Amino acid sequence: MTTLQDCRALDAQDPLRELRQLFALPEGVIYLDGNSLGVLPRATPQRVAEVVQREWGEGLIRSWNTAGWFELPQRVGDKIAGLIGARPGEVVATDSTSVNLFKVLSAAILIAREDHPARTCVLSERSNFPTDLYIAQALCRQHGLTLRLVEPEEIAGALTPEVAVLMLTHVNYRTGAMHDMAAVTAAAHAAGVLTVWDLAHSAGAVPVDLHGADADFSVGCGYKYLNGGPGAPAFVWVHPRHADRFWQPLAGWWGHAAPFEFTPDYRPAPGIARYLCGTQPIMSLAALDCGLDTLLAAAPLGGMAALRSKSLALADLFIRLVEERCAGHGLGLATPRDPARRGSQACLTREPGAGVDGAGSGAYAIVQTLIARGVIGDFRAGDGGRHKDILRFGFTPLYIGFEDMWHAVEHLRQVLETGEWRQPEFNQQQAVT
Amino acid sequence: MTTLQDCRALDAQDPLRELRQLFALPEGVIYLDGNSLGVLPRATPQRVAEVVQREWGEGLIRSWNTAGWFELPQRVGDKIAGLIGARPGEVVATDSTSVNLFKVLSAAILIAREDHPARTCVLSERSNFPTDLYIAQALCRQHGLTLRLVEPEEIAGALTPEVAVLMLTHVNYRTGAMHDMAAVTAAAHAAGVLTVWDLAHSAGAVPVDLHGADADFSVGCGYKYLNGGPGAPAFVWVHPRHADRFWQPLAGWWGHAAPFEFTPDYRPAPGIARYLCGTQPIMSLAALDCGLDTLLAAAPLGGMAALRSKSLALADLFIRLVEERCAGHGLGLATPRDPARRGSQACLTREPGAGVDGAGSGAYAIVQTLIARGVIGDFRAGDGGRHKDILRFGFTPLYIGFEDMWHAVEHLRQVLETGEWRQPEFNQQQAVT
Repeated sequence: MTTLQDCRALDAQDPLRELRQLFALPEGVIYLDGNSLGVLPRATPQRVAEVVQREWGEGLIRSWNTAGWFELPQRVGDKIAGLIGARPGEVVATDSTSVNLFKVLSAAILIAREDHPARTCVLSERSNFPTDLYIAQALCRQHGLTLRLVEPEEIAGALTPEVAVLMLTHVNYRTGAMHDMAAVTAAAHAAGVLTVWDLAHSAGAVPVDLHGADADFSVGCGYKYLNGGPGAPAFVWVHPRHADRFWQPLAGWWGHAAPFEFTPDYRPAPGIARYLCGTQPIMSLAALDCGLDTLLAAAPLGGMAALRSKSLALADLFIRLVEERCAGHGLGLATPRDPARRGSQACLTREPGAGVDGAGSGAYAIVQTLIARGVIGDFRAGDGGRHKDILRFGFTPLYIGFEDMWHAVEHLRQVLETGEWRQPEFNQQQAVT
Repeated sequence: MTTLQDCRALDAQDPLRELRQLFALPEGVIYLDGNSLGVLPRATPQRVAEVVQREWGEGLIRSWNTAGWFELPQRVGDKIAGLIGARPGEVVATDSTSVNLFKVLSAAILIAREDHPARTCVLSERSNFPTDLYIAQALCRQHGLTLRLVEPEEIAGALTPEVAVLMLTHVNYRTGAMHDMAAVTAAAHAAGVLTVWDLAHSAGAVPVDLHGADADFSVGCGYKYLNGGPGAPAFVWVHPRHADRFWQPLAGWWGHAAPFEFTPDYRPAPGIARYLCGTQPIMSLAALDCGLDTLLAAAPLGGMAALRSKSLALADLFIRLVEERCAGHGLGLATPRDPARRGSQACLTREPGAGVDGAGSGAYAIVQTLIARGVIGDFRAGDGGRHKDILRFGFTPLYIGFEDMWHAVEHLRQVLETGEWRQPEFNQQQAVT
């Protein structure tokens, strides 16, 4: 049986341990939801205050030039590029993930239409993140295409001659299952299909190599593992072979080849800059910049490879502790055990009917009880079919340690053994993000 | 001749004078560029710090519920609604002006297509703000429509049976000329044409009555007269008769009827909420909220009517002082003198060839020289034809006073009479926003 001392020993050997000091972790909280909203870096409040008071307050409009606001989407984008196997100048931080997905999926559809006019289908995964499916639905309506949704194991067989674009989220938000980006992309390309990868749960969480995988388009999120703060701008990458082929439809001033010439005709900038549209929230971009610096701080300690190694070790420890200490409470594991097939989270399932009076699984109430105890994970509802209710725990090796795993599971054990989660206050389900 | 004492007397009688204290105006600056980026409200730094440190840092993911992040686009939108003649619940603050224009122009085109399938043209003004024209170009390409650009005086005659949508900016960014929204909308409707109004230079600057004018769609900017900070989220309004008719194409999770159900099928929320798309930058939304509070502070002092009255008086004084004190230096006036036909700015022209060694008009160098002296306006280049180079000065009655007009014009007089602007350092034209 694993002991608290074992966990402490792992922390003592952890070369990334010092990075935790870069974050303002609240007292009494074990935060296992960095996959939903990353923790505040200690450097961020001062940087944001500087943007507000000095750059905006004193510099006013002059700061567009003097404070480098205009270059910020590219400067931040270059930091992201280094985390996802893109090259400098290929990524911009801008808009939301949904809006960026609209841009790249539009471009992918236009390119596919030109290269393979008979292809009429966008392929994705049924349990892809809903907003990705919504954007795809809207674009399919617009272009008269079909959106075909399959289970992950059916993707290879679904790459039929009708498919124009394969749109996937690299790490599944519900289960933490991870696609083999290189293999899936190669299979797609062999079938003449373009790939769009959403890195929302990958960037900053697992090593990503877009060029190595020969991916076509990618987007991702700034407020999860990149620690950019609530609603931080997202990012977008397009392989250089595609970047200049089409206008993306959100043809705003910031993506113009000469944005300050104020010419009436749109002329898209070369490269990724044409994926910019309107004016960006500078404070939020600056906060994202600080978030990225916390990941860059890991570079001399081994970078993404070291973070990945710790993240897998954290999850392995968490799963082992749950299995050792919480057995007999109807918990299962939705996340693949194979390290090559999972992201940076562990998702526990509960059987339907295991809730209070047989209503639901009780997973929602268990998560609420843990949150009341300061162990913050989140709940994702099942679909009544293939997908059970999930207790989701994300592991961010920048600021989570091995002892945290012990205490989180100890809380879970107590919640389950005492039946504390059965109290009515934890069972009033409401909107959660 | 107007004197400095006259200006001071106007300040002494100004009922809005006290509102200036709500802003952190830098020392030694006369800021006549609030039409480009509004001044920092004194309340904003603390509010942003609270969002960063308490809501994000301590509340973390819980703040989506406990800090009301999810309702922020509507809550801020309701404050904007009161400034533009919209009703509570009809406006959301979100995304950029360009992205919001894409949404409403898409919806307008879809509606026009259904109601008047033979109409094939979007009509706008040649000197509309470029990003508006870029978005319209992209959508016209997509829908196989034509973008027809005319001069302002040609609009009425251009409302021919081919026109589906009339897209205008209410107050022209270059000249400050303002359309009669009610009259133009009535003419458009009489011709079976839908209207899209960009309020970038109107919201918070002039009284706007969208319902009174029976407008169809509208967007506007958060960082100009609404004082929301650099790149603040923009806003969008849709007349309730249109709101539920179509999906707007940026169909993201935040516009879903049940965003937390995570269902794979998009089902748009009723009303304006469907014009939301992805996750919004919360810090920047909170700062916009503070900016709007500065406008709401004017409500007990007469609200938009009082602000408008002072804004016109400021501009009249500025123009009079320029004509009295800067005569003989080749300055003209691009802004209409008729108060009903102008926004909250005054734009001075210089003749082509009046620059150093006959190169250009010298307008750029004059603006740079004024900025070096702490009088911040901006330069907008001419087009070599109808539009001359412009020195643009915006008047924000919340924080600008009548004595400021005296000093601004006195600096301009000195710059012109000494020829200081001819120095090489002021003539090195570079990108300006």
